[in-house]
Amino acid sequence: MTAGRLQGSIRIIGAGLIGTSIGLALSKLGVSVSIDDASPANVRLAVDYGAGVAANDSDNPSLIIVCVPPDVTAKVVATELAAFPDAIVTDVASVKAPILADLVSAAADLSRYVGSHPMAGREKGGAASGRADIFVARPWVIATQPQAAALALDLVEKLALDLDAVPMRMSPEEHDRSVALVSHVPQVVSSLLAARLVGATGVELAGQGLRDTVRIAASDPKLWVQILGANAPEVVKILKALESDLVDVIAALDDVNRPGALATIDQAIASGNRGVEALPGKHGSRLPQYTSYIVMIDDQPGELARLFNEIGEIGINVEDLKLEHSPGAQIGLVEVSVLPDSGERLVSELTSRGWRFA
Amino acid sequence: MTAGRLQGSIRIIGAGLIGTSIGLALSKLGVSVSIDDASPANVRLAVDYGAGVAANDSDNPSLIIVCVPPDVTAKVVATELAAFPDAIVTDVASVKAPILADLVSAAADLSRYVGSHPMAGREKGGAASGRADIFVARPWVIATQPQAAALALDLVEKLALDLDAVPMRMSPEEHDRSVALVSHVPQVVSSLLAARLVGATGVELAGQGLRDTVRIAASDPKLWVQILGANAPEVVKILKALESDLVDVIAALDDVNRPGALATIDQAIASGNRGVEALPGKHGSRLPQYTSYIVMIDDQPGELARLFNEIGEIGINVEDLKLEHSPGAQIGLVEVSVLPDSGERLVSELTSRGWRFA
Repeated sequence: MTAGRLQGSIRIIGAGLIGTSIGLALSKLGVSVSIDDASPANVRLAVDYGAGVAANDSDNPSLIIVCVPPDVTAKVVATELAAFPDAIVTDVASVKAPILADLVSAAADLSRYVGSHPMAGREKGGAASGRADIFVARPWVIATQPQAAALALDLVEKLALDLDAVPMRMSPEEHDRSVALVSHVPQVVSSLLAARLVGATGVELAGQGLRDTVRIAASDPKLWVQILGANAPEVVKILKALESDLVDVIAALDDVNRPGALATIDQAIASGNRGVEALPGKHGSRLPQYTSYIVMIDDQPGELARLFNEIGEIGINVEDLKLEHSPGAQIGLVEVSVLPDSGERLVSELTSRGWRFA
Repeated sequence: MTAGRLQGSIRIIGAGLIGTSIGLALSKLGVSVSIDDASPANVRLAVDYGAGVAANDSDNPSLIIVCVPPDVTAKVVATELAAFPDAIVTDVASVKAPILADLVSAAADLSRYVGSHPMAGREKGGAASGRADIFVARPWVIATQPQAAALALDLVEKLALDLDAVPMRMSPEEHDRSVALVSHVPQVVSSLLAARLVGATGVELAGQGLRDTVRIAASDPKLWVQILGANAPEVVKILKALESDLVDVIAALDDVNRPGALATIDQAIASGNRGVEALPGKHGSRLPQYTSYIVMIDDQPGELARLFNEIGEIGINVEDLKLEHSPGAQIGLVEVSVLPDSGERLVSELTSRGWRFA
């Protein structure tokens, strides 16, 4: 018996960030983990970190987790399905449909294969960056396909649950479309916007809006070349639609006196409003469900603590918060979001305690 | 004598959000403020809120602040310059070069005119949304032009300083180029990206990256049609450059096996990296100067307080922070950014107090 849902022994192929992190988390739960990798040095490193033991010929895994780069994932999955005819095999690659298509071509036993994708990661890769906690509270997509046995789906879902992730079942195609929309296209757009800042003057006027919009543009190019290349068809579809909208807005701005020009701009911004409203809120519900207030604080140690201490004393939960940068100023602005029910009380209680709102 | 730098009486035209807010802030300092507006009801509302007194024929202002929509700003400035031959006149419109050009055409007395632009605002407009504090720690552009008298520039700078804003001198053209880059183009890009979410499936996989990228897409379409229309030439220049980059990326993704395709994608993401690095950090210095850590907290009242209380006890200043949303989970992730010097101590002290890092 282990402390989690998974029983039997687990085989992990690929001792990188994700493979090592899964090994660390499962080992903590008392699950028997063996680790394999094309590089014996990688295996030794992961084992040293406590992610499991080195794979050997007597391994008889119930579940095999393939954690190798997307371009070799299908090949490794097919090899593992053939080598371990009783095991369920999953992978963690960030695209799902192309891998399934390759496995169909290879006539692999799809009843024992379930693709998956933990939506977790860190800026740095490699075994040394592995952490047992990186999956906590993150979505873990379980890719459903008709040939997969129910037992196989259940087993991979147990893996996600044991790692404190939130399993979400969807088809490989749905997955690839979804990550193109919520992750891959935003990355491209944020990077292209940030690229406009290179060598430009006037960036000292930048406010929090720009900062938020380009935050993910700081991501690793090597990693993103792989991800975008692997999911290119889905990413291109959305980028083309976006380009078409962009061309319309440019045409409208090029001649703002043309009939319909201002309506085009208005519709672009209004559609953006509706897009933001379509985002799920915290805990799976819909935005906008919070009321936000800007509190002014002195920019010195202890002031944030004092603020949140007093909000805690009042008994109100902070649902979201954001610190605003203030060029040249020694005052900070903290945006505090709370449930609408609590808003009035927050303001009156904090005001009576001497806090100022912007 | 007043509590601030400005002496004499001030005339404000336009009792909207900005005009009322300036009136409230100056009145607090003991400055004599009179308010005019095409709508007598707006004047009454602003006066009721304490922004000043209603304008009357005996007013003899030393400074006139024109706070009307961009498309009528030049006309009102010219009228005021003629009506009050001893007064300095400024405006707060979000574009500067077109207004100056109109004033040149109108042969206005430019020695007494200094355009300005407080980089402040709220989602809601109108006198009722006015707050004395909205300018605190925000940049306030003072638009320099050769004909303006030094005394006029100084006076408008005193206005910004009295309202606790950070005055920044630049030419009208520099201003318009800068706000196109740091504010207007990011708005268009964020809106176009968010628009892709409308009616789409799979948004439940959205993480903090997407949320940050589309946050400003929630802004008011009416306001943005005005702003984008007024600064269209500068916005279009940047959007066309961005479109050209986008077309290149789409072509690369359309045929990822083509020689040079992956290099194009790599360069797009790498340029984004450099753009983010070009942003000024908090207090005017350069990013990235902070080290960030993700701390896990229980999602209940008092936990944030406890965390920041203990960081305060340790004596470390939090430079930036961000709460991550966790779909379906009762655990929260807080990204805490501190000066690199303090990073190691933050981790060791918090770990010894039982906090977990993701």
